[in-house]
Amino acid sequence: MEKGLLFVVSAPAGCGKDTILEQLFKTAENVGYSVSATSRAPREGEIDGVHYHFRTREQFEQMIKNEEVLEYTEYCGNYYGTPRKAVEDMLNAGKDVILKIEVEGAMNIKRLFPECCLVFILPPSMHELERRLRKRGTETEEKIIERTAQAREELKFAENYDYLIVNGELEKAVDDLRSVISAEKLRKSRRMPLLQALRNE
Amino acid sequence: MEKGLLFVVSAPAGCGKDTILEQLFKTAENVGYSVSATSRAPREGEIDGVHYHFRTREQFEQMIKNEEVLEYTEYCGNYYGTPRKAVEDMLNAGKDVILKIEVEGAMNIKRLFPECCLVFILPPSMHELERRLRKRGTETEEKIIERTAQAREELKFAENYDYLIVNGELEKAVDDLRSVISAEKLRKSRRMPLLQALRNE
Repeated sequence: MEKGLLFVVSAPAGCGKDTILEQLFKTAENVGYSVSATSRAPREGEIDGVHYHFRTREQFEQMIKNEEVLEYTEYCGNYYGTPRKAVEDMLNAGKDVILKIEVEGAMNIKRLFPECCLVFILPPSMHELERRLRKRGTETEEKIIERTAQAREELKFAENYDYLIVNGELEKAVDDLRSVISAEKLRKSRRMPLLQALRNE
Repeated sequence: MEKGLLFVVSAPAGCGKDTILEQLFKTAENVGYSVSATSRAPREGEIDGVHYHFRTREQFEQMIKNEEVLEYTEYCGNYYGTPRKAVEDMLNAGKDVILKIEVEGAMNIKRLFPECCLVFILPPSMHELERRLRKRGTETEEKIIERTAQAREELKFAENYDYLIVNGELEKAVDDLRSVISAEKLRKSRRMPLLQALRNE
């Protein structure tokens, strides 16, 4: 069986990547989602095993020791990582997989899976990003300033990505991501077996 | 204004590229189509200026002399070429342009416009391709054999293309082409000005 394709989606906090992915999964066929593990505290409404696998620092460090995470990184004082087995199982079953991870994790995944496809979600403007962070109302002013500065740092990584999608209008951003997933599977480099089969006919 | 993007669509005869493009243009926004010029005789139902600009050999040779074609080639004994002015005008007006040209013409366009995007339409199988050519009923048996052999030759060029789309089911093939056009415009290499603007904000 042909292996699935690995997609990595990154975005600064407040760019709406969670909502985009939620919308995408309502209609996406044969695309699996890998839930990341984190040692950060759940935000209101976040469910363990759905938004993240929430673990204590000690539990997370044990996972690292046991090589149960594909990659991990520390971000704003918390661990974030990708559980290995779930991803490998889906890819081997021919399912495409989307990982939602921050920029350094994405670079690590690219090194592990050079054929993966990296997608970066951009805000329409930095001003709009700050406005969205404020609107959330879940963060202190100090955290908002920290996250805006962090966003600027993360933007530096955007040029290492394959695709840049602007989340100005949600429906358009979801469509764009859908197009990227469809098109990427049509790229010549990924379709050589099919071409070979036609030629041998 | 940002220039439009140039797409080249090629396919062996009988792969349904005309129908795919027809369907695409019913819904595509801001995508222009460049009508090729040819010295071959119109087939039943083909309209001058819509399917092709039909010209005599002498007229076509005059266009070549006047540098009015961007590229041209001879295929099955007839000239096929891309009128220069229409394409350049659309691109300069920020419109994406689709050229429907055969493989050698496509390679010439790639040399002239290295940033263009090449799409190859494949039949689901060689057997199915032959069946479709026969079904047309517009060609002699000799021509059908010639075109099938020609298709095998053209398939050799497919690996120089960026995307390979199989026309098994028409609606799926149209969707695939639509995804390619959308996604290609989201590629990082084409979005650096946008990223730069965000960083300078």
